[in-house]
Amino acid sequence: MARWQPDARGRLEAAAFELFRERGFEQTTVADIAGRAGLDKRTFYRLFGDKREALFSGSAHLEEVLAKTVAETDAGPFEVVIAAFRRVAEEIFADRLELVRARQAIIESSPELQERELRKTGSLVAAVTAALRAKGLDESTATLATESGATVFRVAYARWVAPGGDVPLTDLIAEVATELRAITSASG
Amino acid sequence: MARWQPDARGRLEAAAFELFRERGFEQTTVADIAGRAGLDKRTFYRLFGDKREALFSGSAHLEEVLAKTVAETDAGPFEVVIAAFRRVAEEIFADRLELVRARQAIIESSPELQERELRKTGSLVAAVTAALRAKGLDESTATLATESGATVFRVAYARWVAPGGDVPLTDLIAEVATELRAITSASG
Repeated sequence: MARWQPDARGRLEAAAFELFRERGFEQTTVADIAGRAGLDKRTFYRLFGDKREALFSGSAHLEEVLAKTVAETDAGPFEVVIAAFRRVAEEIFADRLELVRARQAIIESSPELQERELRKTGSLVAAVTAALRAKGLDESTATLATESGATVFRVAYARWVAPGGDVPLTDLIAEVATELRAITSASG
Repeated sequence: MARWQPDARGRLEAAAFELFRERGFEQTTVADIAGRAGLDKRTFYRLFGDKREALFSGSAHLEEVLAKTVAETDAGPFEVVIAAFRRVAEEIFADRLELVRARQAIIESSPELQERELRKTGSLVAAVTAALRAKGLDESTATLATESGATVFRVAYARWVAPGGDVPLTDLIAEVATELRAITSASG
């Protein structure tokens, strides 16, 4: 069967992204997506579960790169998490600013997609925390380092996708990490 | 009309909480809640919108106390947010550990309730960020301080509701804030 469906997943993702941009998320049906990709609805549901999921298939890879970098980096817990997010910025986000902006606009158009994104973020945070724990850190240090790193990433990412910006995401992450250090270390 | 419905809101909240504990969230209907409170479904929906909301009516007060403390406290942005969460711990959470644990167990029993809690947290974070911005802080400093403070609160809260703990929440918040400072300031 694979022979007549080379990369069905990639074709469905591309079709979903195109249609969400053209018509909007609400106005696109799974049948539309399957049709555009030259496949059927059954294939779509076998690969994605629901319509929202077609916009989030990159998150497993993201999680993998984060966990791998955490495992490989030798530094303090917060530095490790920042290094992981910078790796993701370099390997996954760099050179894709326009695509990322378009995807972000689609997500912001739908509370359902925002909800799915929150859940994906939760799963990603859990994966990074688990990777830190696997290095022998206790639960609360791992959680604090992960959540602070995720906060830095979110603020840097918002700056990156905002109109007019042209600083690479990895530099923005380093910059915001420095800001966070300054804010938390100030007085006591 | 108010005469025969003194504190309809409070009675419905109490009835919902009792029934969620006794039967579980899924197994409780809005009609059950209204019945237990001696009121009708229409009154419930007028006050709460949906069944989930009956478990979250405290969040408006929480938001208010946070925003007020942020406005009144004179310190660095992270310290201000920590002070606000400690105020909430003292004024709203202290002496209610058993109730909070029971409520937490109900929330953890239902993905729908977890989702509502995420949204409430989002709204709370937005309120604290807005209160910091009103003091003249820029968007990203306000966001970083709020999110870091919220992370500290979450970790302290998880420790507080965990079985066996007896350290006051406000002390745990101070303790975790110190841990976060240590993690983020270590090296660079």
